[in-house]
Amino acid sequence: MPDTPATPIPVLDTDLAEITYNADGLVPAIVQEHSTGQVLMMAWMNEATLKRSPTEGRTVFWSRSRQEEWRKGDTSGERQFIRSASYDCDGDTLLFVVDQEGQGACHTGNHSSFFRAFGADAGA
Amino acid sequence: MPDTPATPIPVLDTDLAEITYNADGLVPAIVQEHSTGQVLMMAWMNEATLKRSPTEGRTVFWSRSRQEEWRKGDTSGERQFIRSASYDCDGDTLLFVVDQEGQGACHTGNHSSFFRAFGADAGA
Repeated sequence: MPDTPATPIPVLDTDLAEITYNADGLVPAIVQEHSTGQVLMMAWMNEATLKRSPTEGRTVFWSRSRQEEWRKGDTSGERQFIRSASYDCDGDTLLFVVDQEGQGACHTGNHSSFFRAFGADAGA
Repeated sequence: MPDTPATPIPVLDTDLAEITYNADGLVPAIVQEHSTGQVLMMAWMNEATLKRSPTEGRTVFWSRSRQEEWRKGDTSGERQFIRSASYDCDGDTLLFVVDQEGQGACHTGNHSSFFRAFGADAGA
């Protein structure tokens, strides 16, 4: 059972009508942690998973490699409970602010997927 | 002249070798504000603008609509000075943390491009 209850957000047709999908029917979804502001990951949604995510209150993505729906945390236990969701001026990128469960968002065990900095190995 | 001086970051071949581009030779770049943690926008880079951005210390994107390099703020005056840059575990998404100049990142005049929340018009 989730420690952080899911908070469903209504999915309005007026919002969905603003979203633009790419040639594969997908739209990028940025995931940001509510408590820290940290950007955790970016993944992709199709229309079905975009509808499903706010409705369930958890992030659900479309896996391009596996070509299937991927409800974040179902296998890893590291679920993301949505606090708010928005879309950008062009309607071609989504932003989900979440409570991240468990160790983090990245399958490597890092809290954020963005754990490699450009120039980090440049030396002093 | 910039109020916030650009801070060039070395672009290492070892970092660039980790980056995966899509079929159009592009990679999505998330831009986050350093001072607030706010996610400002997402745009696209090709290899040339990815090299140019950290080197110049300012975000330079590839405009898919205009099919040309787009150095953020050159026409609007709302430049983005890079504080740090990283890439995700799959090497297919970039994250730039910046100081945002001027009114904001969005051509609509909003500080962030993500100013429309899902369900905002759902009523009480």
